[in-house]
Amino acid sequence: MSYLIGIDLGGTKILAALFDEHGKMIQKKRLLTQPERGPDAIIKDMAYEVQVLLEGRGIKRKELKGVGVSIAGFYDVSTGIMRSSPNLPGWEMYPVRRELTKLLDCPVLVDNDASAAAYGEYLVGAGQGVRHLVHITLGTGIGGGLILDGRVYRGSRGFAGELGHIQLLPGGPLCGCGRQGCFEALVSGTAVAREGKMLLEAGRAAVLQQLVSEDKTVTAGHVFQAAARGDSDAQSVVKRAAFYLGQGLAIVTNLINPERITLGGGLSRVENNFIEEAESYLREAAVDVSSEAVELVRAELIDEAGVFGIIALLNERLRD
Amino acid sequence: MSYLIGIDLGGTKILAALFDEHGKMIQKKRLLTQPERGPDAIIKDMAYEVQVLLEGRGIKRKELKGVGVSIAGFYDVSTGIMRSSPNLPGWEMYPVRRELTKLLDCPVLVDNDASAAAYGEYLVGAGQGVRHLVHITLGTGIGGGLILDGRVYRGSRGFAGELGHIQLLPGGPLCGCGRQGCFEALVSGTAVAREGKMLLEAGRAAVLQQLVSEDKTVTAGHVFQAAARGDSDAQSVVKRAAFYLGQGLAIVTNLINPERITLGGGLSRVENNFIEEAESYLREAAVDVSSEAVELVRAELIDEAGVFGIIALLNERLRD
Repeated sequence: MSYLIGIDLGGTKILAALFDEHGKMIQKKRLLTQPERGPDAIIKDMAYEVQVLLEGRGIKRKELKGVGVSIAGFYDVSTGIMRSSPNLPGWEMYPVRRELTKLLDCPVLVDNDASAAAYGEYLVGAGQGVRHLVHITLGTGIGGGLILDGRVYRGSRGFAGELGHIQLLPGGPLCGCGRQGCFEALVSGTAVAREGKMLLEAGRAAVLQQLVSEDKTVTAGHVFQAAARGDSDAQSVVKRAAFYLGQGLAIVTNLINPERITLGGGLSRVENNFIEEAESYLREAAVDVSSEAVELVRAELIDEAGVFGIIALLNERLRD
Repeated sequence: MSYLIGIDLGGTKILAALFDEHGKMIQKKRLLTQPERGPDAIIKDMAYEVQVLLEGRGIKRKELKGVGVSIAGFYDVSTGIMRSSPNLPGWEMYPVRRELTKLLDCPVLVDNDASAAAYGEYLVGAGQGVRHLVHITLGTGIGGGLILDGRVYRGSRGFAGELGHIQLLPGGPLCGCGRQGCFEALVSGTAVAREGKMLLEAGRAAVLQQLVSEDKTVTAGHVFQAAARGDSDAQSVVKRAAFYLGQGLAIVTNLINPERITLGGGLSRVENNFIEEAESYLREAAVDVSSEAVELVRAELIDEAGVFGIIALLNERLRD
């Protein structure tokens, strides 16, 4: 028998999964990233988990044909070096591919997490059946991956699909990247929570105040809940986020002319009709011919798209 | 011997060019589109020019291996039907491929003019030597074509690269498409001329007034000239257009991660440092890693990119 391991390394958690030779996931394990540990400690931990997954099933080292790692950040596929990662401090210029290969002693494929997630969603999730797919993760930040003509499109260095920092509102709210009015500064979980906090500081949003009084910290979830319960201030925040989500989706629709856009991440699963409202803005803002050609749907794989995608990419690499 | 003919059909003029079997252009002819004639008359005229080009060289009909037509508008490559064309009135739902094939009685390839121009620039112009190219035409309107991994990327229906109507400023100036604040409504020749006209109506822009007094109609060229001669109102218009050009270029850079962007069309050749200023906005607005990876250059083929591109695409089709 032969096996593959896929690891999705995010800023909050790590998912490691063991796959058999038929591409079936046979075991998975989640752990916390604890990003403050820095890259050396994190990749050692990943190598340890690889060992644990193998030993738990009595799999011999030589039966492991490769490890695929999908990683959050500006990973340069042409050099194997992480340029920077907003959610992984200390990884600037870290030679990810070289260090992992050294530790794991088997073929290693590293790729951008948004690309891997898009490919996973394309192959086994809500992106099945089309040739041109954009997969967008609406979480703490915003990530995008492109499947064009049935293949992962990475651009010249691996940064294609970097949606989070397209500037939708120059002069708008400050973004983590230092610019203002980025997509991510207007639509992400962080952005919605920030607006909620500002409402509370201004003594507004009575329903939101009640919800938060128990937890103290305002989350995007609180803001969406308050909006669902009729808090008009919270509703304004949600409406604004939906508007800019629609604007961002329209730009992608015009530029890529995809058949489908899949939306993943926490904000894609909020109870309000947030996505439906964003879609109506998308339909207004995109050119008609490209809008008619695109479906907007929720992603299916929740947080496992990355490992499915990286395993498929690793399989393709090993076959070449 | 065998020959091919490439025709670039725009809203203002038509360029028809005869190519030999080695891909060398051996004769070209320009004529006015006179778009008000409508599609039937225009394609009859194109068929007539094909005949004239052949007869002028004593080429037999059977030596003509195919005709490639690059056409302005939302041409659906999957059906061969023009959905609509802002600069070609009366072409809505016109079955371009079928009608041309009927008239020309030889293999016919029709494609979007922006895609064909991008491919021409990629093969024989300023896009040579890279694998990932975005070609943008800054003229009366704004068009975009994508070469990804060395191939024309069309999206699901042929509308990919449709840059002109990405909304950079919701609520901004009215666009020909009915929306507000589209790229084209902020940066094109039409947009710059419109701003110049507004300045004159407001009794501002003294230098521009002098320039226009001879010609009566304000053109983008007048506004750029006035700016170059120190007209501060005209300079504000140019600066604003440069800003939004930079914003649009940044969005493309983030989303596609191209190696090069080539700029063609009239606005790419104005004397002021318009492009240089736009580039400085691009460098500020795009994410650093993708900005570092992209060069911004002027296109080389001026108005022949379309015929070179469509001939190359036709050759590939005939070889398949």
